[in-house]
Amino acid sequence: MTNFNSQNYLKHISLDCVIFGFHENQLKVLLLQMKYSKEWSLPGGFVKNEESFEEAAKRVLQERTGLNNIFLQQFCVFSDPQRSKFNPAVKDLQESGTDPNLEWFSQRFISAGFYALVDFEKVHPLPDFFSDHCEWKALEEIEDLMMDHRKILNKALETLRLQLSYQPIGFNLLPEKFTMPELQKLYETILDKGLDRRNFQRKILSWKILNKLDERKKGGAYKAPYLYEFHLENYNKALKEGFSGSW
Amino acid sequence: MTNFNSQNYLKHISLDCVIFGFHENQLKVLLLQMKYSKEWSLPGGFVKNEESFEEAAKRVLQERTGLNNIFLQQFCVFSDPQRSKFNPAVKDLQESGTDPNLEWFSQRFISAGFYALVDFEKVHPLPDFFSDHCEWKALEEIEDLMMDHRKILNKALETLRLQLSYQPIGFNLLPEKFTMPELQKLYETILDKGLDRRNFQRKILSWKILNKLDERKKGGAYKAPYLYEFHLENYNKALKEGFSGSW
Repeated sequence: MTNFNSQNYLKHISLDCVIFGFHENQLKVLLLQMKYSKEWSLPGGFVKNEESFEEAAKRVLQERTGLNNIFLQQFCVFSDPQRSKFNPAVKDLQESGTDPNLEWFSQRFISAGFYALVDFEKVHPLPDFFSDHCEWKALEEIEDLMMDHRKILNKALETLRLQLSYQPIGFNLLPEKFTMPELQKLYETILDKGLDRRNFQRKILSWKILNKLDERKKGGAYKAPYLYEFHLENYNKALKEGFSGSW
Repeated sequence: MTNFNSQNYLKHISLDCVIFGFHENQLKVLLLQMKYSKEWSLPGGFVKNEESFEEAAKRVLQERTGLNNIFLQQFCVFSDPQRSKFNPAVKDLQESGTDPNLEWFSQRFISAGFYALVDFEKVHPLPDFFSDHCEWKALEEIEDLMMDHRKILNKALETLRLQLSYQPIGFNLLPEKFTMPELQKLYETILDKGLDRRNFQRKILSWKILNKLDERKKGGAYKAPYLYEFHLENYNKALKEGFSGSW
């Protein structure tokens, strides 16, 4: 395997990234398809000897999406002793002949899950060594994933849904200026259910994370909805502290 | 070092537990004091070759508290490459002479933080190999902790506070039957601020996780407050799904 020296990485430790993008009212996830086994997987990687988990995750994301400065969140560590018993990477390496890294990929890995919310339009998906495809899949399109990656994806979604009730969301997923119906649609997509328009608006406005602009959406009907942008100072404060209004 | 064979554990991987108890209106944390360096630390341990993180954390908790079936929650992984550069265990082992485990304790560790909420009354604190004290400390009493354990404790507290807005709390921290003022005091202690009595009661009752009993607190005044217990089915559902009422 080219350019990979397992001496540079910490044994037993890996990471997997659930990269969410929002496009045409669908929540999509960036996936890789492996060359030989054709299995689909989440983008992932290992931690270098002198790297933190966060640095490693940023590096993996940068490699797969071309993006820097992405909001990345650790959400769970997956450590079932059986999880890495059937790693398709091992099979792929075996098919390609004797590889010095076979032992590395055969070991037990404990993997930290990170999720990222990215601007769909700005991503240039790039496959890794094991894969020949890297593409966005809508949640409904995703069937089997390799190893426990389906479980990792589900846990990321569950975390994201819980976080909707105490942290802001939308920056990086929506265009810079957006309408209230667009923001509501994002929440409905993540929660997978319809929300009452007036309750939604009241709740969102009470958090004081939006600036209402003196501008309506272009190309719309006679009464096109007003545009909003995030009040980034309040948004980032709420991201750190939660919505203080809740107590 | 007695009974420790590093061959049985995964390299580079450790865990630290923040064990919270509630006693006399104070939030307390279980800490260990090391024999030689006298530094204070969180209870922690390593992951066996065939163990999950959760199993390892349960084992560590059982060893330090005597308790089984504790609600344990993973909350963050600490992976700063510098964090284990000054591990007092290494110094302790050096003082005690040549020890075959010196190399093990000198390696870089990535540590998963777990927190647990336990019934203060039921715990029998037990020191580990490196420590000669294991005791409860109120948050205000805690000064320096070894390595990044202060950071781990702070992050656990931050997580706990955020969770108060979307998940129930109190089971295992309060007696089986408790009054509304006692429950409010628990929230105020964790949040470190006073709450409005009526708002608190309205909010808590709206979550439908309490059964009001036809019984008042004994030994109280003429108008002693009513007792409540948790509605465990709803409580556990909310623990898993968050308060659905929030959307």
